[in-house]
Amino acid sequence: MGHLLAMTDWDRPRLEAFFPRAQAALEVLEGGPAPVPSRLAGRWLANLFFEDSTRTRLSFETAATSLGMRVANWSEGGSSVSKGESLPDTIRSVDAMGPAAIVIRHPQSGAPGLVARYAKAVVINAGDGTHEHPSQALLDTFTLWKRWGSFEGRRVAIVGDVLHSRVARSNLTALRTLGAEVVLVAPPSLLPAGVEEMGASTTSDFDAILPEVDAVMMLRLQIERQKEAFFPSVRDYGRRFSLTEAREKTLKPEALVLHPGPMNRGVEIASAVADGPRSLVLSQVTYGVAVRRALLEVLL
Amino acid sequence: MGHLLAMTDWDRPRLEAFFPRAQAALEVLEGGPAPVPSRLAGRWLANLFFEDSTRTRLSFETAATSLGMRVANWSEGGSSVSKGESLPDTIRSVDAMGPAAIVIRHPQSGAPGLVARYAKAVVINAGDGTHEHPSQALLDTFTLWKRWGSFEGRRVAIVGDVLHSRVARSNLTALRTLGAEVVLVAPPSLLPAGVEEMGASTTSDFDAILPEVDAVMMLRLQIERQKEAFFPSVRDYGRRFSLTEAREKTLKPEALVLHPGPMNRGVEIASAVADGPRSLVLSQVTYGVAVRRALLEVLL
Amino acid sequence: MGHLLAMTDWDRPRLEAFFPRAQAALEVLEGGPAPVPSRLAGRWLANLFFEDSTRTRLSFETAATSLGMRVANWSEGGSSVSKGESLPDTIRSVDAMGPAAIVIRHPQSGAPGLVARYAKAVVINAGDGTHEHPSQALLDTFTLWKRWGSFEGRRVAIVGDVLHSRVARSNLTALRTLGAEVVLVAPPSLLPAGVEEMGASTTSDFDAILPEVDAVMMLRLQIERQKEAFFPSVRDYGRRFSLTEAREKTLKPEALVLHPGPMNRGVEIASAVADGPRSLVLSQVTYGVAVRRALLEVLL
Repeated sequence: MGHLLAMTDWDRPRLEAFFPRAQAALEVLEGGPAPVPSRLAGRWLANLFFEDSTRTRLSFETAATSLGMRVANWSEGGSSVSKGESLPDTIRSVDAMGPAAIVIRHPQSGAPGLVARYAKAVVINAGDGTHEHPSQALLDTFTLWKRWGSFEGRRVAIVGDVLHSRVARSNLTALRTLGAEVVLVAPPSLLPAGVEEMGASTTSDFDAILPEVDAVMMLRLQIERQKEAFFPSVRDYGRRFSLTEAREKTLKPEALVLHPGPMNRGVEIASAVADGPRSLVLSQVTYGVAVRRALLEVLL
Repeated sequence: MGHLLAMTDWDRPRLEAFFPRAQAALEVLEGGPAPVPSRLAGRWLANLFFEDSTRTRLSFETAATSLGMRVANWSEGGSSVSKGESLPDTIRSVDAMGPAAIVIRHPQSGAPGLVARYAKAVVINAGDGTHEHPSQALLDTFTLWKRWGSFEGRRVAIVGDVLHSRVARSNLTALRTLGAEVVLVAPPSLLPAGVEEMGASTTSDFDAILPEVDAVMMLRLQIERQKEAFFPSVRDYGRRFSLTEAREKTLKPEALVLHPGPMNRGVEIASAVADGPRSLVLSQVTYGVAVRRALLEVLL
Repeated sequence: MGHLLAMTDWDRPRLEAFFPRAQAALEVLEGGPAPVPSRLAGRWLANLFFEDSTRTRLSFETAATSLGMRVANWSEGGSSVSKGESLPDTIRSVDAMGPAAIVIRHPQSGAPGLVARYAKAVVINAGDGTHEHPSQALLDTFTLWKRWGSFEGRRVAIVGDVLHSRVARSNLTALRTLGAEVVLVAPPSLLPAGVEEMGASTTSDFDAILPEVDAVMMLRLQIERQKEAFFPSVRDYGRRFSLTEAREKTLKPEALVLHPGPMNRGVEIASAVADGPRSLVLSQVTYGVAVRRALLEVLL
C-alpha cells in the first residue's frame, strides 16, 4: 500500500479521499471506546524516535492501539545506536521482528526514505530533519478542511522559521496541492531559496498580509537558532513576527489560527491568541489521533 | 467523578467505603488472570512522570492494564518539556488525545491541582513535591485496615524526614481522618511547623514512643538532604532515628512496620527488621496494585 | 517451569525437545496475527534492562505480546536504583506486583541468579556481564538446527573477543551439549583460561580454520576494549580476525555465517559478507522472536 514519506507523494484526489476517512475515524474515537477491528488486531507498530517528541509519539501510539494494534516504543539513548550500529542495520533488525509499520523521526533529512528501502514494513515519516513531517500536514489540512470543506480561493500564511521547518515544507506542499494560496512570512534569512517554484509567495511584512489571509499557521521559533545568527534577537523577532493580540485584531473575522506545538507563548504567539476563539491548537492535537488512525487504516 | 489530588479531600466515610473496594480488587488480582471488564477496556491512562519512579509508575500501569486499559508512559527527558513548553500546555495536549485518566508525578507541590484545572481527564496525583502522595496513603492505610479493621485507639508513629515527605503528609491526614493517633518522630529541624494543628503530636525521642505505638511508618532518608544541613550526619541520624533490631525488640508484640520504599537498608531501617515478621514492606507493594485498581474503578 | 539462567542448565534432550517448539512458534508467527491463547493472556512480563539493548528487549516484548501477555519495560535511569536501592529490593518490589516472568539484563555476572533467589516470577537471563546470554544461544543454535537438523560432525568457529563475550560462552555450552565441535578463534589475550575443559579447541590462526568449519559465529568487537590494551589496534585486529570477502571465499561452499548484532561493518565483518548469501544475521533476529515465544510457553 506504500509508505508515507512526504506530502509531495500525495496528489489532490488522494488527499480529498483521505479527509472523509479521517472524519470517520474521528467519529469512531469520539463515540467512546471503540470495538477493536479484527483486521489490524495483533499486528504491531514500531515507534522509532531518534529525536524527542511528546505529541507525535503519543498520537501514533494512541491511534494504533485504538485499532487493536500493539506499539513498541524505542528512542535513542537506550539502544544499539549508541553502540555504533548503522541506521539501515537497526531498521533491518527491527523489521525482521515483523512490525506492520515503522514510524520514524530522525534528525537527518531523508532518513525515512533510506529506511523504506530496507524495510518490509510500511514506513511512516514522523519528521526528518528540515525535510518533511507529512502526518502533521495531513492533520493541519484536515483541521482546515473540517472548517472550509474546500481550499479553493483560500489563502494561508505560514509564519516563522520557514527555512528550518519540516512542518512548513509539508504544509506548503499539501496546501498547494489542495488549491490554496500560500504566503510564507519570515525574515529573509529564514526563507528557503526556490519556494516561489513551489507556488508560494513570500514576504517579510507580517502586518501587511494579516488582513488578507483565511488562516495563519504559526511555526515554533527554535530559539536555539539565535546562536547561529539567523535572527538578531528573540525580542526583535517577536516585534516583527509574533502573532500578538494587536495583530490578531487585524485578521478577517473568520480567519483561523494554527500552531503545531509545542508553543513558546509570548514569543511567536501571544497567550490570549493561543487560547482565543480563532485558535485550533487543541483541535489539531485531537484530530491528529484521528488522522493517524485513518492513515494506518489506509496504509496497512 | 472527581480527581485524586490530596488526602485532605477524602472524609472518613469515603475512606471506609474505599477499603472494601480495594479488598475486592485484591481478590480479583489474586484470583489469577482476570477477565477484562468491558467498562474500562479500550480507554487509556497517561502516566506522566516528571520525577523518577519505579514502583509507583509500574503499579499504576499494572492496575490499569488489569482492567483492560491501555497505558502510555511519558517521562521528562524525551519530550516537549525540554523544548520549554509550559506544564499546562503539555497537559492540554495530552488531554486533547483523550485519555480517561492522567497520573502525574511532579517535583512542584501543587502541580496536579494546576493540571486538574486544564484536563478533561481524571487527574491522579502520584506525588507532588513535598505536598502529597495520596495513593501511597491509601495503600498504607489499606495495609493497616486489613490487619486492624478499625483505626480507633490505634497509635501510629511516622518516623524520619517528615518535613520533606509527601508520604508523611498524606498518611498523617488519612490516619487522622480514620481516627488513629499519630506521632511524628524526627529531629526538630525535620519537623514541619503547625503539625499540631493537624492533630499530630511530635517528638524527637524515638526510643520513648516505641513501646507505645501499634505501627511504625519509616520514611526514606533522603541522604542528599545532609548537604543542606538538616541533620549533622547519616551516622548520627541513624543512631537516633534508625529502626534497629534493638529498637524493634522494644515494640509491642503485635506492632507493625511499614516503609514506602525504596529503602536505605542500614540507614533508616535495619535489614533484619525490613525482612522480619513485623514488616509489611512487600505487602504494601502488592496491595498498591489492588488499591490503584480500585481507585481507577471508583474514579472513572 | 524453572528459570532460564544459563545454558549450562540445559541438557541435550531438553535442547532437542525445544527446537520443534520454537519451529511451531515460528510457524504461528509467520501465519499472521495469531489468535491469543487464553493461558497466558492477562499475565505480564517485566523487562528489566540495567544495560542498553534494542533487539533483545524488543524481541522479548514482541514474543510476549504475541501470546497476549502485557509487557512493562523498565530501564536504569528513571528508577529507584538511582536512589540507591539494592538489586534484591528492586526485584522483590517488581515481583510483589505479580509478573509471570522477569527478563533481566545486568552488567554484573550472576545477577539473574541472585534475582531468581528473590522472585516468585520465572526469571530469564537476557545477558549478565561476561557470563551468559542463554536465549541468544537458543536462537543461534535454533538457526543452525533449521539448516542442519543434527549437530553431529559439525564444526563451528566462534571468532573474536571470546574473553568478554557472554554470547560466546552460552553458544559454546549449547553447541558442545548438542554434539558439535567448537573452535574458539581469538588473539591469546582475548581467550579465557580453561576453555579446553569445556571441550573447545582454540587458535589464533583464523585463516587456517576457515576451510574446515561448517559455520562461523562472528562476535561483536567491543571497540572500547582497545583502551584496556586487549588488542593493539582495531586495524591490526581486523587484519587478523575480520571476516573479509577474501576470507569468506575460503569457507566450504555450504558454510554459514552468524553474528548476534549489532555489527561493526568493516571491523569484524565485511559488509558484503554480512549481506551475502551465507549470512543468517536477519534470520537470527526473526527466529529470536519465535525462540522467545516458545521459551515463554515452555517456562510459564
